[in-house]
Amino acid sequence: MDLAQLATPALVLDRRLLLANSQRMADRLGRFGVPLRPHVKTVKSAAVLHAAFGRLPKAITVSTLAEAEYFFAAGIADILYAVGIAPAKLEAVANLMAAGADIKIILDSMEAAHLTAERGRALGVRFKVVIEIDCDGHRAGLKPGDPTIVEVGRLLDGDAGTILAGVMTHAGASYDCRSEAALIAMAEQERAAVVTAAAALKAAGLVCPIVSMGSTPTALFAQHLDGITEVRTGVYLFQDLVMAGIGVCRPEDIALSVLVTVIGHNKEKGWIVTDGGWMALSRDRGTATQPVDQGYGLVCDLAGRIIPGLRVDAANQEHGIIAATGGASFDRARFPIGARLRVIPNHACATGAQHKAYRVIDGGLDVIATWERMGGW
Amino acid sequence: MDLAQLATPALVLDRRLLLANSQRMADRLGRFGVPLRPHVKTVKSAAVLHAAFGRLPKAITVSTLAEAEYFFAAGIADILYAVGIAPAKLEAVANLMAAGADIKIILDSMEAAHLTAERGRALGVRFKVVIEIDCDGHRAGLKPGDPTIVEVGRLLDGDAGTILAGVMTHAGASYDCRSEAALIAMAEQERAAVVTAAAALKAAGLVCPIVSMGSTPTALFAQHLDGITEVRTGVYLFQDLVMAGIGVCRPEDIALSVLVTVIGHNKEKGWIVTDGGWMALSRDRGTATQPVDQGYGLVCDLAGRIIPGLRVDAANQEHGIIAATGGASFDRARFPIGARLRVIPNHACATGAQHKAYRVIDGGLDVIATWERMGGW
Repeated sequence: MDLAQLATPALVLDRRLLLANSQRMADRLGRFGVPLRPHVKTVKSAAVLHAAFGRLPKAITVSTLAEAEYFFAAGIADILYAVGIAPAKLEAVANLMAAGADIKIILDSMEAAHLTAERGRALGVRFKVVIEIDCDGHRAGLKPGDPTIVEVGRLLDGDAGTILAGVMTHAGASYDCRSEAALIAMAEQERAAVVTAAAALKAAGLVCPIVSMGSTPTALFAQHLDGITEVRTGVYLFQDLVMAGIGVCRPEDIALSVLVTVIGHNKEKGWIVTDGGWMALSRDRGTATQPVDQGYGLVCDLAGRIIPGLRVDAANQEHGIIAATGGASFDRARFPIGARLRVIPNHACATGAQHKAYRVIDGGLDVIATWERMGGW
Repeated sequence: MDLAQLATPALVLDRRLLLANSQRMADRLGRFGVPLRPHVKTVKSAAVLHAAFGRLPKAITVSTLAEAEYFFAAGIADILYAVGIAPAKLEAVANLMAAGADIKIILDSMEAAHLTAERGRALGVRFKVVIEIDCDGHRAGLKPGDPTIVEVGRLLDGDAGTILAGVMTHAGASYDCRSEAALIAMAEQERAAVVTAAAALKAAGLVCPIVSMGSTPTALFAQHLDGITEVRTGVYLFQDLVMAGIGVCRPEDIALSVLVTVIGHNKEKGWIVTDGGWMALSRDRGTATQPVDQGYGLVCDLAGRIIPGLRVDAANQEHGIIAATGGASFDRARFPIGARLRVIPNHACATGAQHKAYRVIDGGLDVIATWERMGGW
């Protein structure tokens, strides 16, 4: 089976690029001696993780309970569930702990700490809790200098329902950086924020074993990681056009693409119509706010070579519309009905989520494996 | 089990509203005596179809081969596959025909007609082909006055690999209408386009049994359907904020919502943070180009009553950020950690696709059923 025979649309993963992306991050973090706790919300597949690291990693980050359950069943015990915990989810966390998972949860308020501690006591377990720190005003967390950090730390440390496990942060604002200098500065801001929070806990006589930071842009541009015990990154394994737009990778480094077939032409408008709509590409338009808007994705030939001057301009549910960027013309005869193309996506997490499996290639056209993806909550 | 106990995020379908939306379309089309061929790309569930119509409909429209296979297995034989056919998909279509499916495919060029006829002869079947007509310059199809229509019709009629089955069109541009007068005009434009194409075929001595049009906005606003043999609509069963923005329904009519839990607050920014991110809501921002931008969705209480002045302002993968529209303030104490809310989505097709099942309610809080959704290609 090769890419010319697959039913389309299909999600294609180039193992060769996956390994290169994995190695690049390992080299980068190896320089600082800081271990990686990969975020699996992008790949959602034990087979992909195994391939990327040559074995299953010992410690991971997850974004859902379903990911925690799936990867624990696959053999990974050390799990950080990096979305603020909802009290109703604690029973499922306790069940995972009872089964042997070393799961850590996160929260960012006294309200959540009280609710978690109470639930821990009721369930007869001590939840390991990491305090979420806000390094960039982007989403959630306590500001590094907020005295609530120590207050929450004391509660977690002293309660029979909880254990204080550390601090973590995520520089979501790194996605808005537009220069290497800005990325370097954001990485330092992220590092300093979480290390400052850890220092506050230690100064109050509390322990803080985990000091965790991470985003793909900051991990690749940090100049040092002093005081950090682990880095969490996910999208780097695939990379995508949003990352390329930030300057974190080149479009040629992106391991994920969607295989599509030409189904028609709108001659008047100069469009190539394909069977790769937003159901296959996702509705993600992450490059829309970047200096170069890549539409719904860049267009490659079957071998994965980018075709300059084309992009997926619009998408309906099962129709993709490819047009020349800037309204230039192209030779339609190169793209007859039945021709196959590959589309590099804006956002690997979103595009991956539209598919049930990866069709894996190794730099060529042969499909060497099919790796299932999990989903849901 | 009720909505206060479900794991979140979860896709909630209100059967009461589903039935009301179904009845409204039946009443509308009943007035004209034109049968409906519902588009199942929105619901992707035999159980939803059965509930909406009190039985499985005899004829449906699909957007993927996987939908054709799934609904044929569920007992529906008359299927229009309404995305321009790719030659590589014809073998699967022939397999469905051999199993007893009365499947019709569509195309819009001599190139596709030749390829289809050739494949039909090679496979020893006659594919039933409907010619796609472009009524609004929106995507695909042949313009109503294009002599190619008759040329394609002659080829399909005369070839041993094909049967000419009719003409169809879809007024995708109806989504850009902003007034009742515009919707009425667009419905007439859609009707006239496909009827004109049918007349051209008949004038050339060809048969044209199917004269098919449809979109939710035009079906609900057409003033007459003379010459039309069937109407295709899908999203009307659920409705959504895009439809409400066009004036096709009220937000209160929307049968689909996403149940989420509050996981924190950003006090400085005035945000409520929930576990309903874009993975649960989809990345669809269909209301962004409408007069009222609804963000990632409107916010309701657990009972489905819209809370005025709130919307999901931003979404990360597993985080939703609710803010007051226009920066107004609200009483955060109404939304403590653990509180449950429901989010009405921009686009029912996209939001539904993020979930594996519907949790069905009947106007109240009790979950009366779980109905699986299918997906993929």
